[in-house]
Formats: sequence, C-alpha cells, structure tokens
Amino acid sequence: MIDQNQRRLQPIAFHAVQFKDTFWQPRIELVREQTIPFEYLQCKETGRIDALRLDWKPGQEPRPHIFWESDVAKWIEAASYSLALHPDSALDALLDQVIALLAGAQQPDGYLNVYFTVVDPVQRWTDLRDAHELYCAGHLIEAGVAHFASTGKRTLLEIVQRYADYISTIFGREPGQKRGYCGHEEIELALVKLYRTTGDEKYLRLSQYFIDERGQQPFYFEQEARERGTPGFFGGAFPERDAQLVAFRQYNQSHQPVREQSQVVGHAVRAMYLYCAMADLALELDDPLLVQACERLWQHLTTKRMYLTGGIGPSSANEGFTTDYDLPNETAYAETCASVGLVFWAQRMLHLDCDSRYADVLERTLYNGVLSGISLDGKKFFYVNPLASSGHAHRQEWFGCACCPPNIARLLSSLGQYMYSQGDAEVVVHLYASSEAQLQVGEHALTMRQQTQYPWDGAVRLDLELARPASFTLKLRIPDWCTDPVLRVNGTTVDITDSLERGYARIERTWQAGDSVELDLPMAVTRIHAHPSVEADAGCVALQRGPIIYCLEAVDNSVPLQQLQLPANQQLQPEFQQELLDGVVTLHGSALAPDLAAWENHLYRAGKPPMLETALTAIPYFAWDNRQPGAMHVWIHETQ
Amino acid sequence: MIDQNQRRLQPIAFHAVQFKDTFWQPRIELVREQTIPFEYLQCKETGRIDALRLDWKPGQEPRPHIFWESDVAKWIEAASYSLALHPDSALDALLDQVIALLAGAQQPDGYLNVYFTVVDPVQRWTDLRDAHELYCAGHLIEAGVAHFASTGKRTLLEIVQRYADYISTIFGREPGQKRGYCGHEEIELALVKLYRTTGDEKYLRLSQYFIDERGQQPFYFEQEARERGTPGFFGGAFPERDAQLVAFRQYNQSHQPVREQSQVVGHAVRAMYLYCAMADLALELDDPLLVQACERLWQHLTTKRMYLTGGIGPSSANEGFTTDYDLPNETAYAETCASVGLVFWAQRMLHLDCDSRYADVLERTLYNGVLSGISLDGKKFFYVNPLASSGHAHRQEWFGCACCPPNIARLLSSLGQYMYSQGDAEVVVHLYASSEAQLQVGEHALTMRQQTQYPWDGAVRLDLELARPASFTLKLRIPDWCTDPVLRVNGTTVDITDSLERGYARIERTWQAGDSVELDLPMAVTRIHAHPSVEADAGCVALQRGPIIYCLEAVDNSVPLQQLQLPANQQLQPEFQQELLDGVVTLHGSALAPDLAAWENHLYRAGKPPMLETALTAIPYFAWDNRQPGAMHVWIHETQ
Repeated sequence: MIDQNQRRLQPIAFHAVQFKDTFWQPRIELVREQTIPFEYLQCKETGRIDALRLDWKPGQEPRPHIFWESDVAKWIEAASYSLALHPDSALDALLDQVIALLAGAQQPDGYLNVYFTVVDPVQRWTDLRDAHELYCAGHLIEAGVAHFASTGKRTLLEIVQRYADYISTIFGREPGQKRGYCGHEEIELALVKLYRTTGDEKYLRLSQYFIDERGQQPFYFEQEARERGTPGFFGGAFPERDAQLVAFRQYNQSHQPVREQSQVVGHAVRAMYLYCAMADLALELDDPLLVQACERLWQHLTTKRMYLTGGIGPSSANEGFTTDYDLPNETAYAETCASVGLVFWAQRMLHLDCDSRYADVLERTLYNGVLSGISLDGKKFFYVNPLASSGHAHRQEWFGCACCPPNIARLLSSLGQYMYSQGDAEVVVHLYASSEAQLQVGEHALTMRQQTQYPWDGAVRLDLELARPASFTLKLRIPDWCTDPVLRVNGTTVDITDSLERGYARIERTWQAGDSVELDLPMAVTRIHAHPSVEADAGCVALQRGPIIYCLEAVDNSVPLQQLQLPANQQLQPEFQQELLDGVVTLHGSALAPDLAAWENHLYRAGKPPMLETALTAIPYFAWDNRQPGAMHVWIHETQ
Repeated sequence: MIDQNQRRLQPIAFHAVQFKDTFWQPRIELVREQTIPFEYLQCKETGRIDALRLDWKPGQEPRPHIFWESDVAKWIEAASYSLALHPDSALDALLDQVIALLAGAQQPDGYLNVYFTVVDPVQRWTDLRDAHELYCAGHLIEAGVAHFASTGKRTLLEIVQRYADYISTIFGREPGQKRGYCGHEEIELALVKLYRTTGDEKYLRLSQYFIDERGQQPFYFEQEARERGTPGFFGGAFPERDAQLVAFRQYNQSHQPVREQSQVVGHAVRAMYLYCAMADLALELDDPLLVQACERLWQHLTTKRMYLTGGIGPSSANEGFTTDYDLPNETAYAETCASVGLVFWAQRMLHLDCDSRYADVLERTLYNGVLSGISLDGKKFFYVNPLASSGHAHRQEWFGCACCPPNIARLLSSLGQYMYSQGDAEVVVHLYASSEAQLQVGEHALTMRQQTQYPWDGAVRLDLELARPASFTLKLRIPDWCTDPVLRVNGTTVDITDSLERGYARIERTWQAGDSVELDLPMAVTRIHAHPSVEADAGCVALQRGPIIYCLEAVDNSVPLQQLQLPANQQLQPEFQQELLDGVVTLHGSALAPDLAAWENHLYRAGKPPMLETALTAIPYFAWDNRQPGAMHVWIHETQ
C-alpha cells in the first residue's frame, strides 16, 4: 500500500472551496434551498423515510423497494455536504432524525436494509445480481463518511461501520463465506472512502476482494441463480445464445476479471462506479495492472463511446453501452447518473496521473451532460439526456427509480473538491470559477482566490496569499478547447508552450503573498465535428464556446431544426444575455433554410434546392427545456 | 356504368407486346425459365400443391396455412401469362394438373379454401379481418381470368366463377347475408377483372358492395370479433386507447368509408390493392367521388410517403405507412409486393386520367423498387427493400409468407400491358423498350416497333406500320427525369413545348406505313434531393440517370459508404459495363473521404476535418446484393 503521505497529489476537501461566482454559487444555493428540501419531501411522501420504521405489513402500500435506502443515503450525503457549506440547524436536526431511523432499522447483526428485513427476509443475500443490497450498503457508507466529514458526528459513520463489519464477515474467500459481489457496483468505492476516513484496512481489503473477485469463473451470478432456482436473467429462461449470455455478464461488468477488461460495456452507471473503485484501489494498492486497465477503459470510453456532452451509454435497452461510435442523438440514453459517475471517475484518474485529458472530460461532462440533468429552478430532472428532441422530452419532478436527482445534488454540493489538487510541492488548478480556496502545499497554508466570468469569459486571475514565501509548483490546466492561451505571472507574460506538462502550464517559483497569475483563455466559437464513424453526426457540426456545448431550441429558431443548414464560413457572434435562462451567452448568426415554396407537391427534386437566409440562435445545451416545449438539436447540418 | 366502347383510353393486352430488348426480354425469359419452375417447386415442396388434395389429417405436418391458395394462384397467374408469350406444353399440362386439384378441392357449394375445409371448417367466414379467405379467393379469381386470357381454357375460370357466385350469396345487404368485407383487400379488384372477362355485372356489383361497405359503421371487424368471442386484435385484448384502435382500423383501411379517405395509411399492400379496386370502380361506375378519393390518395402517397425507388410503407411494425416524410433508409420495409401494387394502381390511374405523373411513378417503381425484389439469377427475392444496408440484408430463396416472389413473376410476365394505352383515336406510349406491339386505334390495326437501348440510353425510334393511312394522335411520354427532350417526326424536329399535354408530347397526323418518330431523352446524371422534411436524407443526394436510381455498394468503394462525401460540383461519368451485373451503366467520379489518420485518438475535433480524394462507383439500385455481401447506400452525403 502507498503511504498516503508519499502521494504526489491529493484531492482537496469539498469544503475547502467557497464559490463566489455567478454560475456555480447560485446553483449550489439552489440545490441547498430547493433541491435538497424537495428531495427530502419526495423521499418522505413516497414512503422511503417512514419505511425505516420497519412497521410495514404485508399488503400495505407502498411496499418498500429494494433500492429505497440508496435514495435516502444520497440525500443524506448531499444534505451533509450542504450543511458544511452553510450551517443550518434545522437540516442538521432533520439529518439526525433520519439517522436515528436508520439506527433503529439496523438489525442486531449490523444488517441494514428495509426490504430484506420486513418484506422478504429469507432472501437476504440470495440475489446479489439484481437486488442491489450491497449497492444500497455502499450508498449508506458514502452517506456516513460524508455526514462525519461535514458535521464531525459519528452517528451514521458508526452505523455504516457496523454494517460494513457485518458484510465483511459474509463475503470473502474464507470457509463459509459467500464468494459474491454486487450486481451494481458502488460498495467498492464506498469502502475505500470508509477506509480513508477510519484508517481501518479491513474496509480496503473488502473492497479489494470485491474488485478481485468480479468476473472470476465460475461466474457467481449464474451459480447464485441456479441455487435460487431461477436460472434465467430478469426472471426469464437462461440465455441460449452465447452472445446473449455475454451481454448479460457485460451488463454488470462481470464478464471477465476487471484487470483484463479493455472495453467499456454494459450498464453505464455500474461501469462508472466500478472504474472509480478500480482507480481508487490502483492508487491505494499501487497496482500497475489496475492502472493500466483504468487507462485502457478511459481511452476506449473517451475515443469511441462518449457523447460530446460527456453523456455516456446510448441505449435504453441496457441503460448503457452498445458498440463503438454508436451515438444516436434523439434516442441517446446518456443517463444523468452515468455522467455524474464519469465526473467521479475523471477526478480519480487525475490523481493517478495528472493529465489534463481527464480534467477536460471532467469539465465537459460537468458543464453539459451533468448540468442538463437539472432544471434551472432545481426541481425537475432529466433521467436521460438526449442530444436531440422532437419536442417530447421533458424534465420530471421525480422518478420511480430516483437515482439521478440526489446524485446531481451530492455532486453540486461537493463541487469544490474538483477544482484543485494539492501535493507536497505543488498545487494544480483543474477548473476555473470565482472562488476562494484554502489549500495546503506541504506545510504551507495557501489561500487561492480566483476571479473570472467563467464559463462565459476565459479571463482568469488568481491571487495567492501565504503567511510566508514558499517554493512550489503551480499548475494551471489549459483546456483542450483553447488554442491560444496567454499566461502572465505578476503581469509578466510567460511562454506557455515551454512550460506545458501534460496539458498544464507549470510555474515553479517561490511564491509570496500578493503574487498574482493571469490566465487568458480566449473563448472562440468553435465548430466541432464528430469522428467519421459516428453515423448520427455525419454532415453535422456542433457549436462549442469555452466548455459549453450549444444547442438549437425551437423557441429561438423559426425553421424546423433539422432543416437548418449552417454555412461553413458563417461567423457566429456570442452575446451574454443577463435576462435569459439565468444569464447565458447565446450564439447568433445567419443560416440557410430550404425555400419550402419550391417544394410544394414535390417529394424529390433534381438539382440544388433553393435556400433562404434565416437567423440562427444557439443556447447552452445544459439550459434547454427550461422554456416552452419544443424541438432541440445539438448537431446542426453544415453546408459550405 | 360507362359504356366500355366510349372509353377514351384502354389498357392493351399483356401479350400485345413482344419485348426484343436486352433489359426486359432476358428478365422475362429468366422468370419463365427459372422463377416460375422454381416457384412451383417451392409450392410443391412446402405442401402448398398437395394440400389441395384435402387429405390433411390433424397433427400432420405441414398443416395447410390460411393463405397458401394465394401463392398457388399467383403462380398460376404468372405461369399463364408466360404460356401466352412462349408456348410450353409441359407448363400447360402442369397448369391443368394444378387446376384439376383446385377443381377437386372445390366444395359442392362452390367454396374453395383448403384451410377452412380440412383444418378448421367451423370457422369459415368468421374472421374476415385476419383469415385472408376473400383475399385468397381474389387471387384465385385473378388466376382464373389470366388462365383463360392466356389459354382460352375455361377450366379455372369456371371454378372461380362458381366460387364468386357462392361468395355473392354470402355477402351483401340482403337479409341473412354478412355485411362483411376482407381484412386484406384483393377480391375487389379481382371481381372487376372477372366482370370484364365474363361481362357478368354480378361481379362488378359484388366488388362495389365490398368497396362501399368498407369503413361503414358499426365497424364489421369489431362486431365480428365480439361474435367470435375474441374481441382483441391479433389475439390480444381490445385496444384501450383510441389512437391504437384507429391504428388497427387503418391497418386494413377500414377506418372510414373509402370515398372519405385522403391519407394513405396502414398495411401498404392492402392499401394498394384497395386503391386499384377504387380506380377500377371509379372508371366502371363513372363515380366522381371515387375518382377524387383516388387522386387525393395518390397525391398524398407520392408527395409525402414514397421512397425515391417507388418503395412504399416504411415500417415493419405494420408492413405499412407511418407519418408524412418518415422514410428511414436502413429500416425501410418497402415490401416488394407493395411496389408491385403501386405499379398496378399507377396503370389504373393512367386510365382514369392520362397524366404522365402516374406513368412516371410507374416507371420509377418498376425499374427500382420492384426490380430490386428479384436477384439477377431469378431465384432469390427481397421481401423488404431497404435503401441502405450495413451489409446484413440479403435476398432469400423463399419466405413462409411467400407473397412477393410470385407477385414479381406475374408482373414481369405480363409487363407488355404497361407500355401503351390505346383509344378510338389515340395511342399513348408510356414506357420505352425495344419491342414490337400490335395495337388497335379505332378500327385500325397498328404495329408499333420501338428501337432503343433504354434504360441505358434515351434515344428511342418508333416505327409505325399500318395497312392504310389513319388519322390519330400519338402521345409520347416525356419522363419527369428528362429536361431536354428532342422529338422528330420522319426526321423533322417538332417543338415539344407546344405539343405537351399533361406530360405527353402529342402528335396529331395522318399516319402511314413507314412513318417514324424519334424521341431523344438525354440521360444526364442527376442529383436528387429529398424534401427538407425527410430527416433521413438531410444533407444527402441520390443519383439518378434516366429512370434508374443508383446506389453505392461496398464492393465497388474502398471507403465506408457513410463516410463518403460527394462534392456538389463533381461530375460523374456514366459507363456501360457489359460484363457487370448482366450489363449495366455504372457511374464513376471522385469523392472525398475523411483522412482517418487525423482522427486517431479523437472522437471530436474542432475545425474542418482533413479529407482525401477517393474514387466513387455507383451501380443501379435494382442490381445490388448480387455480388459479395456488403453495405449499400442510396443516399450519399453531399459536400460543396
């Protein structure tokens, strides 16, 4: 195991950063004021909270569901982060109440799962593949860690430690133990968090066991199903065709040992949570095979199977991956939780290997594929995030399977941790936003202030405050979307090319209070093409400015969106509109649309059809579906 | 009823034309030598012939199927046409044998259907919607009419007359009769043929009854289903939602009275056969409401719901129509039989109204959407005719539901009838092919010889031979694909613009033996665009030369087809290749393909991606999938 003190680079605490910007800070406030109370209300009204009283009787509605704890746990996690940023005694008390209910629901042996306690107790641990028991345990553990980190209270932490202790007696390679692992990865990464919080290596070992065991033969889930007497998948017959069987194994990434995996397959959220745990263990165990597997999977995902928005998993059939370059727009599944999971994974990859390609994907996903998941009022959510709509896709208040809303809430409430990394002799800036951060470089405490209008303007000023001068390296990410960055240290321009290290501009010096760094990241309106093998985007371009991916919405454009053609040489003008969509930069220009008069009574025509000039307006993709319903397109036909 | 002698324009007999060309004549021969014997063998081997012996016993395999007679009947029809063109005593005798089996299978009351005689006799006429009884009867009637027309023998004609006589006692508005009609239209048009052959108006009246009754309320199929005790459709529950119920009614065009219909809906073959009968009755009954309905439906089909190939019915879900402009390429259903039905309908529309737009669609459909249905060796068939393939769509030898192979065979074996129309004082040329036709203008017999390399070259020479001079109008269709036709009469150029009447160049004169007409129809390689509302074809062009629609096949092109881009100003050269695909004109030119080296490790790129020049070869769409398997595209991305 790596000595934690030897680590080059570590993440910072989520509460080390105070956002002071007009983009994230209002959103974090919105999550605090709207989303977190709203989600609690939803958990309460749907029975998720009261189910913890264990007083359900057969026939009673609603019947507790197998993954209700995970929703409550993610709410606790989000609420805990929020509490650390903004003291709130009522929320603190509410958390204590819910935690008390969880304490009451915990069984004498440490087990904690309402469904398998009151609804179907004899089936405990009999359906690891589909019953989400260890998945729910994982979210409870993450909640316990977050609650402790935010409040210092050990109430929930001790509950989940007892639960994890009990789980460690059930699963493993000792005689009498089950050689299983969960059909929905989550507990693996949660156990690493629990280890890091408690220092108890038992939890790291259990996580390692789950990761090592996954995909070993004989396949646990198939043995387990035979023992249960229901050999098929999802209640059906056992698949007859090999391809189907492989697809079922791939669904939960149990088709082969994880160190041998090189393709991102199956259910996208499951995959992301697995890869997070693999990256965590690669770091903790200094395991080169795990590092290599993570790098292979990252490369495969980001060069073959990722939407421009950072959405991943195109298919609703498996909520996950299909084939390389299969990235349909209107039917894109691109579950919000999968993008949240990609942010989690990207951060972990950054701490295995400080390369900006990880932070680039993190930023892309955060500003686009994640943020599209929540409405501007914080109360409605996309479960799936298509890149085109004919006008029938709309955010909803809640879902029967309500994984996404609290997942966004916990990410936004703990967003600070993604901005920087710190090490013994370096500070790395991954993201830009007006904020104030308390960092630690070796033994030096450092206050870092950022001033910027990011993501609408790429001029960033960083001011450093230190008690005494300190020599360390400051690394600033140069985003992949920026072609002509300018860097100044205390007003003096620094050649970025010379200082560039894996996508970060590197400044080594003895820093002292009052030092300032200015980074100009000009945000040109850029046309993006997709790889020629992406059939869905053939002949089309997408618009990007800074980290923001744009889309057309019907409400802003008078022509049916699929009929718009953007001339290749047409300049588009950005304009910040304070009153629109809580303040966004929109893009404006001239496009072409078919002259429909020339098509009357024609379905086909020879020769170039006559076109008319029309105005085009694009808005940030994340902000779509916040006005009147209508069509939306990210990819726009381009003409010369 | 219109006095048949008063009719302006009539179709000619199928055997009035002898093809002498290198395009149709070898295909008609192929159908005679290969397809018709092969189809008989298939009918024999699958039990369709021997089932007529009525010796099936419960449990025996194969069990006669409800629509087996229709396959046998269409084979008889095709074989009869073929016999008229090419005497063949063995085929003649084989037909007699099969007809004898049909005679033996006919019940004392005239009924003739194996399934409802030996398998499930109590269900006779209880499931008009799905059991195809009247549909099979219709095909038997068409076979009887064709066999009589070809051989002069009344054997099968009398069988089907007895059957039709019996049917006329069962269905109608008299007390005790069923107010039903068939779920798959066909008998309506067959009864008009039987009327025209026999002169017995009873058959016309029965056809009229079926047409008039269709879509009247209360809905017969729903009453019938309730009486049967299986109220749902296809064995399911009765649809709960109105939209679903409407879709079920539309499936067989029984959603409203036919004279009120204005949208082509439902199962495409059913629709075509219905519209054929509507056009037949519109003419026979001089019914303006039926004429108007036909015109509305034609307009809707050809301006909103028809593939460039004349394929119709995009969806496999209902083997039929969906919504306007919904014309996906790779998933196109475009059943061969539906295109055959469109040819039938187009011919009937021409005789309601001699406008070239009907013949244009007839030609388009014949050379493309129909002809793609049969392999060059005449032994394999497409049931569905996609306009793009990733390489997995291939013709098959036979189908469980084997409607398409004999439908092509009967069309090609009777193709001559589509070339001309004749009237008291005019002859109309609809199609061009080297051939010799025996025509009748009023009281004048006329031999018309065409010499042309059509469809590969548009120069057509027509020589007229008459016993004595005669004044009449010769009308020559100017195809919609031709922009600069040149017409010469006995060597003297005639101004086409002045003489153009609804798409036909009109030459009025006193014709005498030795007169010749030359029509030059230059075949430019033309780029076709689809209506802007056809999302599937956005940014794409198709290639057409003369009546032939082209496609790209992977075997001829080194770049994945969806990655090819055809520059707008790129000239394409036609080349006749005698040795290729039985002799076709191919198109050649230069196109662009992405430089994949520039995409290594990139899924998205800013700016215009680098392109490389590559050769492009297009072949006629009808000839695809006759070499090694691979991808195919009709629509090609166009760049400027």
